[in-house]
Amino acid sequence: MSEFDLIRDYFRWDQPPDSVRVGVGDDAAILRVPAGSELVVSVDTFNAGIHFPHETPPHAIGYKALAVNLSDLAAMGATPAWFTLAISLPQADAQWVAELARGMRELAQQHNIFLVGGDTTRGALSITVQVMGFVPCGAGLLRSHAQHGDLIAVSGTLGDAAAGLAVVQQRLQLPIAAADYCVQRLNYPTPRNALSHLLQQHAHACMDISDGLLADLGHILQASGVGARLDHELLPWSEALQAMPQAQRLGFALSGGDDYELLFTVPPDALAALIMAANVVGVRITVIGEVDKMQQGLLMNHRLSDGRRGYEHFSSE
Amino acid sequence: MSEFDLIRDYFRWDQPPDSVRVGVGDDAAILRVPAGSELVVSVDTFNAGIHFPHETPPHAIGYKALAVNLSDLAAMGATPAWFTLAISLPQADAQWVAELARGMRELAQQHNIFLVGGDTTRGALSITVQVMGFVPCGAGLLRSHAQHGDLIAVSGTLGDAAAGLAVVQQRLQLPIAAADYCVQRLNYPTPRNALSHLLQQHAHACMDISDGLLADLGHILQASGVGARLDHELLPWSEALQAMPQAQRLGFALSGGDDYELLFTVPPDALAALIMAANVVGVRITVIGEVDKMQQGLLMNHRLSDGRRGYEHFSSE
Repeated sequence: MSEFDLIRDYFRWDQPPDSVRVGVGDDAAILRVPAGSELVVSVDTFNAGIHFPHETPPHAIGYKALAVNLSDLAAMGATPAWFTLAISLPQADAQWVAELARGMRELAQQHNIFLVGGDTTRGALSITVQVMGFVPCGAGLLRSHAQHGDLIAVSGTLGDAAAGLAVVQQRLQLPIAAADYCVQRLNYPTPRNALSHLLQQHAHACMDISDGLLADLGHILQASGVGARLDHELLPWSEALQAMPQAQRLGFALSGGDDYELLFTVPPDALAALIMAANVVGVRITVIGEVDKMQQGLLMNHRLSDGRRGYEHFSSE
Repeated sequence: MSEFDLIRDYFRWDQPPDSVRVGVGDDAAILRVPAGSELVVSVDTFNAGIHFPHETPPHAIGYKALAVNLSDLAAMGATPAWFTLAISLPQADAQWVAELARGMRELAQQHNIFLVGGDTTRGALSITVQVMGFVPCGAGLLRSHAQHGDLIAVSGTLGDAAAGLAVVQQRLQLPIAAADYCVQRLNYPTPRNALSHLLQQHAHACMDISDGLLADLGHILQASGVGARLDHELLPWSEALQAMPQAQRLGFALSGGDDYELLFTVPPDALAALIMAANVVGVRITVIGEVDKMQQGLLMNHRLSDGRRGYEHFSSE
């Protein structure tokens, strides 16, 4: 398996930070967690043909495998520190692996997260990344802390990645610029770690949107034992989706998934400060609903400010 | 993918220990590393047809996927604390997964290691386990700390698992009891975490034997910049291999792999105390050579106490 050993060279990037006492090369890594911090850990597997089309460029695969894991750290309010990487490859293709490593490295350097261990082996194409980070003790953002009266908000725009997948799978035709934008959002999601620091101060509950707004909001509602009202006319759209029929883009946003935007609840009196701070780090925040004081489940198409209209009911069960 | 969500139920075992602030069910786990400790992290992937024959019982697959990772913690002198599990499955087979979980749980409970996160997805059968544990700050056992004058020793017996694989692959015939023993050693290796605590006090360098004695000792010699003399007549054999021609069992031990015994170097004056303590935890220790004062690489078949005989030379490069 010496060809696989050579692959390690593509993942030797930089001098390790001080937090890494022993990095790649021994039986295990030895790492220092700062005093006063808790360790935050998440793992995601990324399989060819399931999580990405086989023809996805390796640069995008490397980028996204790390991005979706960074997004989990963001959803907890955690600062990225280290990651491990387990790759299974049908054969050791040096060029392909070099591109995978390049995509991963670009994002790793942006987020100051360091590779501390891994395993490279023969098998069907599969990439498992485990990220580790820190939060100050007790400051982790949980799904279960939504409170009656909180506003419900999201970062960025929704539905773009699902539209991008439909373009790649030739189920959707868009103007070239819009199609390119959506495919880019599918392949290169932006983990919202910059926003996450601010949410740690202001938000009550938080998670990232990987399965679509309905399913993921359902997780928060269930974990917190509350209900919600959403106004679908408030959902934030990219220019690419703005021109699309409303029913179609709603489908992408509500159940499409792969957005990796943050979904969170925030008390009304903290909203202004949060939006201003988010503006400084260049992230758009949109209020789309509120935690319901009375009922469990989700009321859709409810106007926030001017009473009830027609609505659909989605159980969070 | 709701069938895959159901699989999580097989891995809900016990109440989490105090060190787990948030376990499975949020975007990430939140964990507490004790003050004065460093975090030790290792990851290994286990693919069907590569790391185990397709027909391996799922109970053994679950056990071994965790065992080989626990062995990496043992090799660092670390106390197991938590693990994550990423499984790819061709289909959601409840019975199969229940057996996998049972095998894993048995070993997890023995070693007091707790499952804190995971991912279950569709794909070719593949299991990636990441273990995390602690060592007191600065006390991790590295490959690079072998010193001139150290004795070289191993735990347990060598070559059994490689003989077991040869039996499974019908390349070797053994009496039934010996065949059963060797296949058992292949499928259910014993991670030497009990010994590891003692090595932390006495040993200089340590690693686990996964690729065979020659390759793995080579890693220690290279990392430490030293050479070694081995007396192959000192290698420890199980009863099952004792009856085998010497050349055959030497082949299994030297380059067969999958033993998951510990290989370590220890100063001569610490040996007696270490052997007595290891005896208490029921682990056999055998001195098989010494770190060479003069040269790099490995001298085989060198009698330790009565000067040189014929030897073979293996470079550690």
